[in-house]
This record gives sequence, structure tokens and C-alpha cells, in this order.
Amino acid sequence: MATVKLMSLAEAESIPAVKEVFDDIRVTRKSDFINNIWRGLANDPALLKRTWLQIKAVMATEGEFDPLTRELIYIAVSTANGCSYCVHSHTASARAKGLTDAQHAELMAIIGLAAQTNHLVTAMQIPLDPEFEVRS
Amino acid sequence: MATVKLMSLAEAESIPAVKEVFDDIRVTRKSDFINNIWRGLANDPALLKRTWLQIKAVMATEGEFDPLTRELIYIAVSTANGCSYCVHSHTASARAKGLTDAQHAELMAIIGLAAQTNHLVTAMQIPLDPEFEVRS
Amino acid sequence: MATVKLMSLAEAESIPAVKEVFDDIRVTRKSDFINNIWRGLANDPALLKRTWLQIKAVMATEGEFDPLTRELIYIAVSTANGCSYCVHSHTASARAKGLTDAQHAELMAIIGLAAQTNHLVTAMQIPLDPEFEVRS
Amino acid sequence: MATVKLMSLAEAESIPAVKEVFDDIRVTRKSDFINNIWRGLANDPALLKRTWLQIKAVMATEGEFDPLTRELIYIAVSTANGCSYCVHSHTASARAKGLTDAQHAELMAIIGLAAQTNHLVTAMQIPLDPEFEVRS
Amino acid sequence: MATVKLMSLAEAESIPAVKEVFDDIRVTRKSDFINNIWRGLANDPALLKRTWLQIKAVMATEGEFDPLTRELIYIAVSTANGCSYCVHSHTASARAKGLTDAQHAELMAIIGLAAQTNHLVTAMQIPLDPEFEVRS
Amino acid sequence: MATVKLMSLAEAESIPAVKEVFDDIRVTRKSDFINNIWRGLANDPALLKRTWLQIKAVMATEGEFDPLTRELIYIAVSTANGCSYCVHSHTASARAKGLTDAQHAELMAIIGLAAQTNHLVTAMQIPLDPEFEVRS
Repeated sequence: MATVKLMSLAEAESIPAVKEVFDDIRVTRKSDFINNIWRGLANDPALLKRTWLQIKAVMATEGEFDPLTRELIYIAVSTANGCSYCVHSHTASARAKGLTDAQHAELMAIIGLAAQTNHLVTAMQIPLDPEFEVRS
Repeated sequence: MATVKLMSLAEAESIPAVKEVFDDIRVTRKSDFINNIWRGLANDPALLKRTWLQIKAVMATEGEFDPLTRELIYIAVSTANGCSYCVHSHTASARAKGLTDAQHAELMAIIGLAAQTNHLVTAMQIPLDPEFEVRS
Repeated sequence: MATVKLMSLAEAESIPAVKEVFDDIRVTRKSDFINNIWRGLANDPALLKRTWLQIKAVMATEGEFDPLTRELIYIAVSTANGCSYCVHSHTASARAKGLTDAQHAELMAIIGLAAQTNHLVTAMQIPLDPEFEVRS
Repeated sequence: MATVKLMSLAEAESIPAVKEVFDDIRVTRKSDFINNIWRGLANDPALLKRTWLQIKAVMATEGEFDPLTRELIYIAVSTANGCSYCVHSHTASARAKGLTDAQHAELMAIIGLAAQTNHLVTAMQIPLDPEFEVRS
Repeated sequence: MATVKLMSLAEAESIPAVKEVFDDIRVTRKSDFINNIWRGLANDPALLKRTWLQIKAVMATEGEFDPLTRELIYIAVSTANGCSYCVHSHTASARAKGLTDAQHAELMAIIGLAAQTNHLVTAMQIPLDPEFEVRS
Repeated sequence: MATVKLMSLAEAESIPAVKEVFDDIRVTRKSDFINNIWRGLANDPALLKRTWLQIKAVMATEGEFDPLTRELIYIAVSTANGCSYCVHSHTASARAKGLTDAQHAELMAIIGLAAQTNHLVTAMQIPLDPEFEVRS
């Protein structure tokens, strides 16, 4: 159960500022589906709008990486932050954007390996090589 | 300062099992540079070998994603795990593999946004939508 | 399911050292409700007592911040540590201490934003400004 | 050292979109000081602007909590996320907003205690009490 | 629900490379039980094998620490990383290797205390004493 | 630099409640060395005392595990929480209690492996096997 009210669509969309965002989600995603995070954020239309506009700008706009690559990065962060909902929802998004089983398996391998070396480095307190301090 | 001895190359490579791994790192990476994590791991040749063979299999072999994409995922995990050394070294690797400033900026935006929604979801304890429970 | 036995109240309070703590919880909180964490900690009366005495000293005693402010800080830490139980229980406590929906929404916004800038700073490895090294 | 170029003020403000944000930071904060995170974010004027507008809306606008309380929450999240820069900069901000030594000490106590119970709950896998599933 | 297919034993063991690993798990552990993580990893026989061979080398081979001590360390890491499944499965393993209730209680106390001082140190940004920079 | 004043020994011990704790640390540890965390905590004698009494009860008293095993658990938690100071100080303590290089290497291997499977499990969202729900 959530710590906030998950508004029904009817209730949420009776708030004009919420309806405006929900409509934009639907148009941008070409889908009628409004998932639970948005129904939670609807409790604060300003936060809802700021969050959605970021998602739209970062994940749903032409950019440097293709949409699938962006989802891979999102899943990686969400895994390391232990967000079960986020892992589920962004894995679903990634699959909808074409993620194959073989690609998912490789993603798992990279995430697991990074976590391992992250912890090894922290446990050994490895100092930075000066060679890594050069930046384009 | 590290919690383990960072062996000099001479000392490390006087151990045959270590020299074998270091040589493979040089050949695989087409570079003479052996960075500090390997000089720390040299204290345990078996762990050194297991870690390197994973890195080689996951990051340095033909796979599903191109080498740069894999580095993006690695940086994302390392950031969320707060591993400064890893963020530095894999950002350097990514730049060596062609990461542009514009791509790096987009990576920052995705990582930051994912962290934000991860925390919002956890703070609101959003339950999983049944729609996300479908899997290819 | 827990990894420890969640004792029934009857079983827990048959241990005098546990009963003493449970009674103090009830008196301090002016409530009969003993939530699950205490029934888990009852497996180790010494740890139970140390934990409760800290909670009492830090959260249930006149101090620098009002009780609601302390819960906000507790929720913030619990969210970043990904403790679902703690987010639920301290959000409930905060609401019992007067947290309004508007305040909860602002708490969400701050937590989410902090997480975002935390990750941006770590991913960019921003060095400390000397100006921040001054301390009262 | 950062993984991005920390632009000098002159360089950053030669970009009109950056200068506009920096000017707004100065006006909003009534201070000439532009700290390092902004000089890192200047590499991506769009991300800089989105980040600043959130900070402004959440931290620098009349809201539900007073400015000091918001900083306490920010410090709590930043500590749990292990962001050294953020802990430093927001502790400095909190002190500038009136945080006393006694209040800082209480903040430490709450953060430390929350972390302890977070880990106890996770290690014991305490299930949620149904009583906490009620929501205003 | 998992984000990958949890293969049935029949399905998984129809893949020779998976069957080989599962057989080795059974022999090594002297048990027919194959728990869910292996049925998830079976989607990628190479990752399955690498993961198992590490577990076998690190957790199921004669080494420096007795098998129970290794499980304690595993539980500690898993708790701090917030992995519910891992806490459950390694606590079960530890109990199977003789962990008593009193020992489990002491493990809880150490984990909780470490988390508290970790957060206190990070919140206070305590600098390293030069005395700790000596290493055998 | 710390976010609190690191008191000199002279200053700290001019406060009777602090001197009492510092004296107990010296007697308990049979050493004159007072490391930095205590000089930071001296800003709040009550928190100092609570923290020390826990350390004494959990780490410096006859218990279920030998002193070295307890340090291993402490290091494991501190690594996963990314506390550099704590990793350094508790690795130094462990070495003072007899940790050998070979044991340290095995500790690294376990920590790294746990982190890897923690992240694999979270990324795959592996559900709990009913077999793990049995408890002594």
C-alpha cells in the first residue's frame, strides 16, 4: 500500500492541472495507460508536472541516445537504488522498445559486474590513477 | 590510501599468476596501462583472475551492446553505488570509446532523473501496476 | 516473513526485560500498540532496550526540533536507505503528529530533488568549494 | 577532479542560457557566489535550467516548511546517499539559515538512529503492521 | 514477479549448459534444492556458470573463514544493499550451517551499529586519522 | 574537512561528560589513541556516550563471535554503505586483531560476490522461494 492516496483516474482528472499532464502523457506515449506513479504524484500537481516534464525531456524526446539505451541506464540506476517498482516499470518499457532476452541478459551481467567491482574498490579503498584525471 | 598494498608492477609481475593476467589485460586492451584496481587485486591472484575474466567476458568481448553502451550502464551503477574511483575510471573508458560531451550530458540527465523517481516511488511506496507483470 | 521470530505479545512479555521495555513504550507513546519491529527485537532483550532507549531519547523527548520535524528527517533517511517498513511506519507517525497532505507533498519534492542532485554531483564528481569548508 | 569541465564564470556566462540561470541564482540567493555544481551543470544549459528551477521551486520559495527544515531533509537524504559534496554544501546552507550546533547535533542523532533501525528492519525482514496501512 | 522468466527445472535442464551447472550445485550442496536465483540466471547459461563458479569458489570451498562466518559477511552486505531475497536466502543458509538465535541477535546488533556509525561519520564528514593509514 | 568541529583532546576533555567517555575508551581499548569520530561526537556528549556504550557492548565485550569476526561484519556493512572512514578504521582494527592478508583477500571476495548477486537479484526481481520462509 502506498503512503499517499493513489487517485482514481476520475478523481485525478477532475483537477485541471492533473488532467493536462495526464493528457500529455497519453499523447506523448501514444497510449491510454497511466501507471501508478502518476496517480501518486497527482496529489501534488506541481511536482507531477515537474516530474513529467523531465521524463518527457529526457526520455521521450529525440536525443543523443536511442530510447532503448536510455532505459538501460534507467534500469541500472534503479537496480542500484533498490527500487523494485522502477526496475519493473522500466524493464517493461525497455521490452516495449525492443529489448531482447539476450540483451536483457547482457544488461544483467554488466549491472552485476559493476556492483562487484564497485564494492571491491570501496573495500580496498583504491586511489585514483592520475591517468583518469584527464578529461576531454 | 588503500587498505591493501598496491603492488608495484615489478612486484606484482614477479607472481606468475598475476603476470599472466596483467599480460592478458594489456593484449586485450591494446595498452600498457595497468590501473590501480588490478594492483590491489594482485594481492589475491585467484580473485584477480576471476574479476578480470568477467570484465573481459562482459566488457571486452563482442556482445549485444556496443562497448560504449556498456560503459554507460557501468557508470550508472557506479554512480548510484557512490564509487568515485569507478565513476572516474569508467567515464575515462567511455570517453576513450567515443563518448561525446553531449552524450555525457544526456547520461547525467538520465542518471539524475532516475534517482529522483526512484526516491519518489520509495517515499510514496507506489504499488506495482499489474500491467508491468507481463514478460516476454 | 521475517528472518526472526516475531513474538506474540504474550510470549514476549513473559520475559521480564522485554516486558519492562514494552511497558515503557506504551507509557511514553500513550498507546497500547506495539508494532512489529519491537516484537522482532524482543529476541534480544539487550538490543531491544538499547534501541528503544535511543528512540526515546532522540524521538520522544523534548529537544531542538519539534516531533514532526524529526519524523521528516527519519523518513528522508529511510527512503534513501530503501526501508519500506520504515517509510510506512514513520509516515504513519508523522501523520499522527500532524503532517498534512500538503506537507507530505513538499517532503516528497525535497527527497526527490536531493536524490537527483546527489547523483548528479557523484556522476560529475564535483569537487568541494573552499567556501563550504567554513564552519561555525 | 570532476568528470566534466568545471567552467570558469567567464566561460560559463559567455553562454546566454547559462548566464540567465546564474543571474537568477544570484538574485534568488542574494549572493554573488556560484558554487561548483552549477559550473559543472553549465555543460548542459537545459539540465542546468531544469535543476535550478527545481531547486528554486522546492528550496527557495515560500512553502509548507521553513527553509531550515528543508535543508535538514536535504542533508538527511544526502548522507544516506553518501554524497560528500552535498552534505558539505547543504550543511553550510543550513548553518547560513540559522542551524545551531545543538540542532546539528540532534540532526546527527536522528540520522544515525534512522540508519540503525533501517538496517535492523531489513536484516530481520520485519513485515508491515496492518495498522500502518491507514492513510489520511 | 520476476523481470525474467523463472524457468521450470524441466525447461532449464533441457539446456545442457544449464543442466551441468544445476548438477554441480546439487553435488556441491548435497541437496536437490535449486532456488529461484538459479532459475532466473538460467536465461543466460554463461552468466549462470560464472556466478555459480564464483559462489562455489568463495562460499563452498575450504578457505580462510569457516562457512558460517562467510554467510555472516554475505548477510551484512545484503542488508546494507537492501536485497530482501538475499537476506532471506543467506540467513537460511547460515541457520543451516549452525547459526544460533543468540548469534543471529549479535549479527543484528553489529549490522545496526555499523549502519549508525557509517551515517554519523558521513554526516559529520570525519577526516581519516593518519594512524589508520598504516597497513600490514 | 568535517561539518562539525573536531575538538582537540584538551578542549574535549575539559567537558566532564566527554572526559568520562574518553577515559573509558582508553581503558577498554588499552590504548591512548582517540580517533577522529570521537572528537566529532564530542560536540554532543549524550550522543557520544550512547554511541560509545553501544560500541563497547557490541564490539568490545565477550559475545557470540570473536572480535575479529565482528570486525569483518562491520567492514562489510561499511563497504556497502560507502563509508570510506569506516572501511579504513575497521580494517585497521581488524588487522590489529589478527586479520591476515589471506583473510582480508577472502573478505574482499565475499563482499564483491555478495554485491554482485544482490544486484542480479534486484535487477531480475527474483521472488522468494517458500523454502526460505522456514525459521528456527
